[in-house]
Amino acid sequence: MAEKIVKVGLVGFGTVGSGVAKLILEDGARIAAKTGIRLQLACVVDVDTQTQRSVNLPDGLLTDDLNRLLGDETIEIGVETIGGTDIAKEVQLALLDAGKDVVTANKALLAEHGIELYRAARKNGRCIAFEASCAGGIPIVSAIRSGLTANKIAGMYGIVNGTCNYILSNMAAKGEDFAVALAAAQEKGYAEADPALDIGGGDSAHKLAILASIALGYEITLDDIFVEGIESISSDDIRYGGEMGYCLKLLAIGQMDEQNRISLRVHPSFIAKNSALARVGGPFNAVSMFGSAVGQVMFYGRGAGMMPTASAIVADIIDVAMGNSRTTFRQLCLKPRTEIEPLIKRIDEIESRFYIRIMAKDQPGVVANYGKILGDHQISISGALQHEGRGPDNTVPVVITTHITQQRNMTAALNDLAEEDVFSGKPVCIRIVDIPEDKD
Amino acid sequence: MAEKIVKVGLVGFGTVGSGVAKLILEDGARIAAKTGIRLQLACVVDVDTQTQRSVNLPDGLLTDDLNRLLGDETIEIGVETIGGTDIAKEVQLALLDAGKDVVTANKALLAEHGIELYRAARKNGRCIAFEASCAGGIPIVSAIRSGLTANKIAGMYGIVNGTCNYILSNMAAKGEDFAVALAAAQEKGYAEADPALDIGGGDSAHKLAILASIALGYEITLDDIFVEGIESISSDDIRYGGEMGYCLKLLAIGQMDEQNRISLRVHPSFIAKNSALARVGGPFNAVSMFGSAVGQVMFYGRGAGMMPTASAIVADIIDVAMGNSRTTFRQLCLKPRTEIEPLIKRIDEIESRFYIRIMAKDQPGVVANYGKILGDHQISISGALQHEGRGPDNTVPVVITTHITQQRNMTAALNDLAEEDVFSGKPVCIRIVDIPEDKD
Repeated sequence: MAEKIVKVGLVGFGTVGSGVAKLILEDGARIAAKTGIRLQLACVVDVDTQTQRSVNLPDGLLTDDLNRLLGDETIEIGVETIGGTDIAKEVQLALLDAGKDVVTANKALLAEHGIELYRAARKNGRCIAFEASCAGGIPIVSAIRSGLTANKIAGMYGIVNGTCNYILSNMAAKGEDFAVALAAAQEKGYAEADPALDIGGGDSAHKLAILASIALGYEITLDDIFVEGIESISSDDIRYGGEMGYCLKLLAIGQMDEQNRISLRVHPSFIAKNSALARVGGPFNAVSMFGSAVGQVMFYGRGAGMMPTASAIVADIIDVAMGNSRTTFRQLCLKPRTEIEPLIKRIDEIESRFYIRIMAKDQPGVVANYGKILGDHQISISGALQHEGRGPDNTVPVVITTHITQQRNMTAALNDLAEEDVFSGKPVCIRIVDIPEDKD
Repeated sequence: MAEKIVKVGLVGFGTVGSGVAKLILEDGARIAAKTGIRLQLACVVDVDTQTQRSVNLPDGLLTDDLNRLLGDETIEIGVETIGGTDIAKEVQLALLDAGKDVVTANKALLAEHGIELYRAARKNGRCIAFEASCAGGIPIVSAIRSGLTANKIAGMYGIVNGTCNYILSNMAAKGEDFAVALAAAQEKGYAEADPALDIGGGDSAHKLAILASIALGYEITLDDIFVEGIESISSDDIRYGGEMGYCLKLLAIGQMDEQNRISLRVHPSFIAKNSALARVGGPFNAVSMFGSAVGQVMFYGRGAGMMPTASAIVADIIDVAMGNSRTTFRQLCLKPRTEIEPLIKRIDEIESRFYIRIMAKDQPGVVANYGKILGDHQISISGALQHEGRGPDNTVPVVITTHITQQRNMTAALNDLAEEDVFSGKPVCIRIVDIPEDKD
């Protein structure tokens, strides 16, 4: 089979951009032998043309002039690896207007402005390929769009932020405080200098918005997603939860109930220690899904990093070059919100089990007190843990787990507990998520 | 978006065929809303038109006349779910000759006659889609062909036969003998009345041949694959291996060494209990792969069964209907063996660690004896286990694990051990596979 040469322009020459350049330059021949497509890196655009990167570009390829890429009609595909939402958006729109297909890993941009960008792509008869935007090197986007297309996805449970998973894994394994574990993640390069988007859950929400929209087939906005980060997680709660058989993960959750009502949320979640996702440690990602026909499927791998992300980007480039991405993109029917009124459950309406820790003062009536408050709100206790001995301020931590109840009830109960004299401070509350496991 | 109507003909109305019919008939509207493609089941062909199946077909759809399907030019896609290699091959060739694209789950047929069928498809300008042939509902074929296309796959370790995994899981959990566990699997419908293809490793070899050929990009034949089944596994060895930290799985293994030499094999394998694949229980499948860019990725799910297999078949039908399968199939460059001399390592040349059990007679010199024989063959012992007490015939089981050595050396040592007077019978030997785990 004759090789087809396809010219690629790259915008953004940071870590991920360097990985993409490296794969194309060093492995181009091998990829061509397998796919029949010979990628040619025609132009690399970055404002910084001086700093030495981990890959050496052939002379004359690096430029700070985006117009060189836009004006070159022989370049069919533009790869945006700048990140962020402002300049990246302008760049993607410019690439589409210049008649190029776009490949990107930019989850923030797609989650916030995807609808506008998809519209621009359609107008220009081009496509946007975004496998790398969710869970890095794991081909989860194509799995949902193609491999599982016959399924109604009833549930999706993902560890999709490696930074948070690394921090929580270390807090659990070493008993480290959040600040210490965060600093270690930054040291290792797993967390940014400004970690807010990761630890606040925003990055996971971006990925959930993208995955949910392709799984459901309609526009999902960030407003649809409840988000709670891991910033205020204490290693005490990880330890107490551990004693009760749970492991703490930041989960991105999508659930559809029998009335087709959707719950989309990102929050710290206690999951059973023997569940598959509990064993996903360090910076790894995994997504467990439940399809109406296939049952449970799970995908595991590196969700970030230079080469895993580049792996997904180059797979997309090949898919675009073959022509398949354009077909898949054309079939990507994200129904506008105006056409369909999605039944999004607000966080108050969801049902969950809960882990609560209250700091009880050393005086009689504590158990009767929390027992009554929870009972008044129709909350049934499933487990309790109270170690002997004193904590700070002469208080003792009382840990309670509950049966299923509405978030609304729990919120009301927490307010009541916070006002009681026998407890010190506000109660800690973490949701317990019982991930269904497909059994034989 | 206007729906495109695509007519599908089904040949074979057994369990999997019924699942495909069920998905198309019951979920067609939902699939059309998501993909823009409205599948229409136009014809179902089976020699048995009488037996009641788990799905009700509209009147007039079921026929025993294949020509009704072949002669209907409006039917674009033929799905073959007969199984077996004789009639199924004739049917697939007839479908291709009649100008229809083919979708199949038939691993045995593709592993044995894939080259001939692919050639026939090309000649007719049609494609064969076979996602369902490997690991049922898990989209592993498309992951290798598309999602991981930028990667050189250095290693692939798969639990791809649910029957064997169910049997071995039960033998380990309940201490059951092989025959008892097999009967239970047959009772549950996880094993056929004639289980030879599953328990002998042949079915796993079929899947490995398909996966290895698409990962490597050239023709792999069954002769390239070393196969050993689980028929003679004793629950004693599962127990002793367990005491030494291992779990027994039937693995399909593909490895490429630094000189690009390939080892392809299916055999019972002791793997570390804390490895990800060790936790795959019951009838489930999982494949762990190592890509040059992506690192470790793992896919998990149901590898067989009516609806999981139908899920993969319908995904393929949609992909064919969209036109993507034809592109992907055209790019599937399986280089003929005449063009490339693949460097296949024979089983004698592979290196492995080993578990050995010898039944030692109750007399002095046993340790010196096996120690000398292994030492003479340059085999270094890594662990040993000998419980006090007697076994049958006044013998005692001595279990030894070794460091890495060539299979050739081990085979020679086993021959020497079998001839020694202080040991009773032939030694048991099971390979220990150290699956690399990607760590942070």
